[in-house]
Amino acid sequence: ASATASKPVALAPMFADQNFYRSIPDLLRHLPLSRQQLYLQGADKNMEAILESLRAVFNTKYDRVSWALAPSIPLVSSDDFLMSCHELAMELGIKIHTHALESPLQKQMYPKRYQGGLIQHLSRLGILNEQWVLAHCVWLNATELALLAEHQVAIAHNPVANLRLGSGIADVRKMLDYGLKVGIGTDGASSSDNQNMYESVRMGALLSRIKTPQVTEWLSAQEVFFAATEGGAACLGLEGQVGRLQEGYLADMVFVDLSHINWQPLNHVLQQLVYVEDAQAVRHVMVDGEWMVRDGVLLRLSLADLMERATLAREQLQILEGLQTDQNQELLAAIGQFCACSH
Amino acid sequence: ASATASKPVALAPMFADQNFYRSIPDLLRHLPLSRQQLYLQGADKNMEAILESLRAVFNTKYDRVSWALAPSIPLVSSDDFLMSCHELAMELGIKIHTHALESPLQKQMYPKRYQGGLIQHLSRLGILNEQWVLAHCVWLNATELALLAEHQVAIAHNPVANLRLGSGIADVRKMLDYGLKVGIGTDGASSSDNQNMYESVRMGALLSRIKTPQVTEWLSAQEVFFAATEGGAACLGLEGQVGRLQEGYLADMVFVDLSHINWQPLNHVLQQLVYVEDAQAVRHVMVDGEWMVRDGVLLRLSLADLMERATLAREQLQILEGLQTDQNQELLAAIGQFCACSH
Repeated sequence: ASATASKPVALAPMFADQNFYRSIPDLLRHLPLSRQQLYLQGADKNMEAILESLRAVFNTKYDRVSWALAPSIPLVSSDDFLMSCHELAMELGIKIHTHALESPLQKQMYPKRYQGGLIQHLSRLGILNEQWVLAHCVWLNATELALLAEHQVAIAHNPVANLRLGSGIADVRKMLDYGLKVGIGTDGASSSDNQNMYESVRMGALLSRIKTPQVTEWLSAQEVFFAATEGGAACLGLEGQVGRLQEGYLADMVFVDLSHINWQPLNHVLQQLVYVEDAQAVRHVMVDGEWMVRDGVLLRLSLADLMERATLAREQLQILEGLQTDQNQELLAAIGQFCACSH
Repeated sequence: ASATASKPVALAPMFADQNFYRSIPDLLRHLPLSRQQLYLQGADKNMEAILESLRAVFNTKYDRVSWALAPSIPLVSSDDFLMSCHELAMELGIKIHTHALESPLQKQMYPKRYQGGLIQHLSRLGILNEQWVLAHCVWLNATELALLAEHQVAIAHNPVANLRLGSGIADVRKMLDYGLKVGIGTDGASSSDNQNMYESVRMGALLSRIKTPQVTEWLSAQEVFFAATEGGAACLGLEGQVGRLQEGYLADMVFVDLSHINWQPLNHVLQQLVYVEDAQAVRHVMVDGEWMVRDGVLLRLSLADLMERATLAREQLQILEGLQTDQNQELLAAIGQFCACSH
């Protein structure tokens, strides 16, 4: 790939300058007294140091990979920190990716912390613009939808992850009605086990069918396919460069095997892609004109090597987890109780 | 397989003795006047003739395939017909499979037709027993759950099909609380495009997470796995014969390739089977000790032959559909309107 080629993968390291346990009003006093000090460890992080280390990360250049800023959730970010992130994003011309109104708990908490809720607060800070991509947005109200549309904020819709975490079902029909750009994602492996984009796209279509009995409001195959391709491109700031098979676009292509049982009989390509295909018929993958997968074989990665590294990482995580088991059990009960009461 | 071996596949041909358009109170007068006569064609079927033809079908014996009766939905069945089906099922020792309280429309319509609704009606007819398997059951109330449990009726839960048709999300937690046997299915290709059992099992688990914010009420991986295996066996009357790897059970086994990326790293077999596996790692399938799939290749079926037959069937269906296009468009508008008003 040439140095000027678009970069269809954006990596956005997550960070925060505040502590989760202190960010949610009233949570701390529901946690075991003996542990409260422990939970406050590292509560105050040095914002300047974080931003400096990010600059160093962003200086590392990769083929086809761009960077984005990901203040993990605004709940654990100070206003100063969010504004500094925005400033840095504008300076570097990169996106800001954050999680917004994902869980029922967030829906409850934001209005307690910010007058009018999170979106109004970000708007008042004067930083909301087309650089922002908000993940999830399950609990937006009409005022918030209008504000996001006004500022051309894009939404990363993760239907399966929203189910996995019990977050609910985002109202994508309303987002589209308000003119918002919507992409579809799987979310990361820490909040959605399965990284199958076909399943996520299908669930995007299917879950819209229980938001309303009005058939005309259901998302069509065409709408979710657009969200998964050009909508995703818009979330990455790559409109007109990827997400469409057309002259002037990068040659990013997935080839499915039409002799696979998923395609018997061949009836309607778009409907079958959205409602039937589950990745089993995927045969080749090309990115920017270069083969990444041929006949099901990864050409640029060694699966054996990945396996080894994943197994090693798993062992290390298990040790860390083992050290925290008691603490985690305590937290499970206390936070579960707190969250259920907040509904 | 020996003649006495269990038959883990049950085929249940659908039939009815009444006409859909007349079965739903008030629907007919919402349809185009000029077509009402057309919609009533075949409204009165000869019950005896249907049952006779079924006896002939059931006399055809296949390896590993048993028969069941499937009065399609009770809405299009007379009481006499349902009672005759039950009688025949008891005589032949086979199951009765029907669709119950699937759609919001059915929830509205049954109490208008039967005092107290469908389940109470079946109970009053004195035919509800452990031979019955009810598909869907999205809209059961507490009285109905209790009645079904009392009569040991089993439930076929089809979470993806319920989404596809906009039917809603069945409350499987309540079914289990009442002690009902629950199996998991994909439903047929006419109401669920994708026949991927792994996806259906996963959605069974995930959709329970938006029924309630109470984490303890969510279905566990273990519960949906049980439903998909032993629960399914119970629905077919094969408890103790299939659905478990144990001495005395049939050797029905699916082998997944642990070197597939779905299993990297190997962390927790049951969790990964339910939350990650999407059928891509399936390598071999054995039924009753005989290989059906080896290294991804179907041994008992020719995919090429299936393709040819599916393509032919598609062409024939397209011709039939073409003949009815105008009629279907009229119906779409009129029935859509009727259903939306019934919510």
